[in-house]
Amino acid sequence: MTQDVRTITRETTASTIARVFAEDDIGSVVVTSPEMKGVLGIVTKSDIMHQVAVDADISSISVGTFMSTPVVTITGDKSIREAATLMREHSIQHLPVVDDDELVGILTTTNLAHYLPRLRRNILRSRDELSDQ
Amino acid sequence: MTQDVRTITRETTASTIARVFAEDDIGSVVVTSPEMKGVLGIVTKSDIMHQVAVDADISSISVGTFMSTPVVTITGDKSIREAATLMREHSIQHLPVVDDDELVGILTTTNLAHYLPRLRRNILRSRDELSDQ
Repeated sequence: MTQDVRTITRETTASTIARVFAEDDIGSVVVTSPEMKGVLGIVTKSDIMHQVAVDADISSISVGTFMSTPVVTITGDKSIREAATLMREHSIQHLPVVDDDELVGILTTTNLAHYLPRLRRNILRSRDELSDQ
Repeated sequence: MTQDVRTITRETTASTIARVFAEDDIGSVVVTSPEMKGVLGIVTKSDIMHQVAVDADISSISVGTFMSTPVVTITGDKSIREAATLMREHSIQHLPVVDDDELVGILTTTNLAHYLPRLRRNILRSRDELSDQ
């Protein structure tokens, strides 16, 4: 997972987020609040694309009006397979990792895809170790 | 992979593509030409995001000016692992599948992530079959 998660507040404008996405080469930002623990919402490139598509004034519209909420999250103790299944079931590409109301990272379909060649080696290795016993 | 790939020409405007992305819930379109075989370029949500971020006039700018070209592609006979490795090496999330200059599909990091739980089962199954022999 990516541990350095970019967070914003619900007042942030769509055009500011478009610049964050373009400059940082990331696909989502998590909406948090200084007053509340936990995750309020999530905004992805698809959400910004939708605002562009409907001709919204992206320099003034704030993410509080179009963020996805509530957010599907996972705890850090879950397996990669559980995360992949959860993302498929909910048709999402970004899954915040939250432990005790604390955002600790984000897992993306790109993270999972990059892990895929390693997964094959790990499964075969753990299988070999088992059969050695 | 996704077989129904959305293609556009290089004259298509950025705002038209933003609408296609929003309406069809896809993350990339492949640029082709009626006059030429093969794939001319690819445009992703990140590319549109970049145009929005630099305040381009997205209702008039055509994709020929900002599409990614040449395009990294793969042939249909390659393994999922090879595709995942290629995508990681090139930092891309969309990989057109091209056989004999013919676009036959597109593979995304989301496709790979969705395949991940199945991969684990398949590897273990093929391993079990081998050990049965």
